Amino acid sequence: MKGHTIVFQNKPRIVATGTIAGPKECAGVVGNFVDKALLEDTFGEDTYEKAECKMLTFAVRKAIENGGLTEEDVDLLISGDLLNQIISASFTARDFDFPFLGTYSACSTMTESMALAAMLVDGGYIKRAVAATGSHFSSAERQYRYPLELGNTRPPQSQWTVTAAGATLIADMGGDKSCFQGKKIPAITAATLGRVVDYGITDVNNMGAAMATAAADTILTNLQDMERDARYYDLIVTGDLGALGSRLMKDLLWEKGVDVEPNHVDCGEIIYNVIEDEFQGGSGAGCSAVVFGSYLYEKLKKGEIRRMLFAATGALLSTVSSGQGESIPCISHAVSIEIDI
Amino acid sequence: MKGHTIVFQNKPRIVATGTIAGPKECAGVVGNFVDKALLEDTFGEDTYEKAECKMLTFAVRKAIENGGLTEEDVDLLISGDLLNQIISASFTARDFDFPFLGTYSACSTMTESMALAAMLVDGGYIKRAVAATGSHFSSAERQYRYPLELGNTRPPQSQWTVTAAGATLIADMGGDKSCFQGKKIPAITAATLGRVVDYGITDVNNMGAAMATAAADTILTNLQDMERDARYYDLIVTGDLGALGSRLMKDLLWEKGVDVEPNHVDCGEIIYNVIEDEFQGGSGAGCSAVVFGSYLYEKLKKGEIRRMLFAATGALLSTVSSGQGESIPCISHAVSIEIDI
Repeated sequence: MKGHTIVFQNKPRIVATGTIAGPKECAGVVGNFVDKALLEDTFGEDTYEKAECKMLTFAVRKAIENGGLTEEDVDLLISGDLLNQIISASFTARDFDFPFLGTYSACSTMTESMALAAMLVDGGYIKRAVAATGSHFSSAERQYRYPLELGNTRPPQSQWTVTAAGATLIADMGGDKSCFQGKKIPAITAATLGRVVDYGITDVNNMGAAMATAAADTILTNLQDMERDARYYDLIVTGDLGALGSRLMKDLLWEKGVDVEPNHVDCGEIIYNVIEDEFQGGSGAGCSAVVFGSYLYEKLKKGEIRRMLFAATGALLSTVSSGQGESIPCISHAVSIEIDI
Repeated sequence: MKGHTIVFQNKPRIVATGTIAGPKECAGVVGNFVDKALLEDTFGEDTYEKAECKMLTFAVRKAIENGGLTEEDVDLLISGDLLNQIISASFTARDFDFPFLGTYSACSTMTESMALAAMLVDGGYIKRAVAATGSHFSSAERQYRYPLELGNTRPPQSQWTVTAAGATLIADMGGDKSCFQGKKIPAITAATLGRVVDYGITDVNNMGAAMATAAADTILTNLQDMERDARYYDLIVTGDLGALGSRLMKDLLWEKGVDVEPNHVDCGEIIYNVIEDEFQGGSGAGCSAVVFGSYLYEKLKKGEIRRMLFAATGALLSTVSSGQGESIPCISHAVSIEIDI
């Protein structure tokens, strides 16, 4: 470990992804890249929670299938989600015979799970793991905010929880790249584990602003630990800061002498084409999971992005903590992803 | 990985623990061994949730202190708890400057966190990690069941959520035991990662029965993967099956030709001296955390237990999943702990 960053010697590879998204999401940038574009967000289920779980299960199964493998080849599922007691992940794990490690770091769950999977694969403890997460607008609204039937208005600083799930299959492929047959298979070269930061923001509708500090902290830590300039990465990807949060994050880094303006993109900011009710953009654990697993993974495989820092961001609040007057602690875990190495 | 079991070459050590428990718990077996016995379960806070968080923070800080270290020496906190969005763990992490990985596997969170810490230490990624969890009767009751003020009667198959927290400091101490100065410092020699099992039990008051299958599955997997007889272990410890769940677990193993009756103990079954309202015994993530961190850790250090299989058990339900008619998926992660090696 250099500082808070772990460098992987054996370069665990992201062999495949599995993704699924709702109709609103598929009208945007991920629509052409997901494995399944849903026509209705209930996915044939009678509750939104069951739909969310079914989507996550689909993504896990699809990642395994897209990797040309079967369930028997997988050693471990690492997953979590936004529902209380991460029931989407737990009930997804029930459908598989391999072990399950439950994780939670809100909307940074994807990168926490990927970092853990990379460590366990790199360390030689397991051969292949699936790291996955998802979220659903309607289950999140009724758990965190209000019943949809109330028709509450949303403040302009709010974001829209993404209905989507994404899974990555992370495996040890050895040092010999001849088996790649010329394909570009992205490797996880490092992981920066985030610490919890809290700048005292209490507005639960403004999580992008709260998370901006965590994203800035982790990105800066990664660059310092790896002794890299921000230009090293073709793309620095944050999870769901939204438009306002992204601006704050860039300002915070600018104050530290780091300019990420030219190569930063936020999954929440780009996922929706038209900003209407979504205001600041998308959010939710599924947001960065689906944007990475579909649109960005495709760009990596094509060589259009060669080096990426993927820093998903999580707001570690609950309705109870906010109700008791607490501010919003935030976290961001990041993984460095590279091709041609 | 042998089957679902990872064997550690570098023998990460449980250097120290930190524990705290409420007054009801301290009237029982852990009372003489915890670092702090609370006189009142609010711990000076104005809400039970804040008390739970303060207890967890205390346990983490105490484990570091008992290990003769300071915060700067610790690389990582791995923790989760039963509250929605694991706020006790997240808010605890806010008080420290080292990175945080959030975990969740209900009352198996202690062994999931210990297994992860052992892997990351054994793999050389970090030097020292704290794995911790806790629970609180009153915060659990109002989140999972009814407001305490209602004074609901409890069915005889129910358990009592333990008010306690426990933390373990897990570190790489190298192969040279001369620095131990004759002390017995327990090593984590293996970890068996659990899979989710679900035998269709839907009674949320009977989680011991639901979890019995998961415990049996993981214990059997550990014995098979390690090619060991149940007698290899001086003690096979489950988390919070309670009296009924323990009997079921032993029956399930007996059917598979494995007799754990002589060397099995369940933390939930032994934590309370007098069984009144607790019926089947204690439960909650803090139950196994505090029994292991105080009473059992002391026995390991004294050499009264030389080989232990610690299999905490978790019921992966939520009020929403139960409300939607789902059964209770369960999981058990186990760690083998040994001295004199």
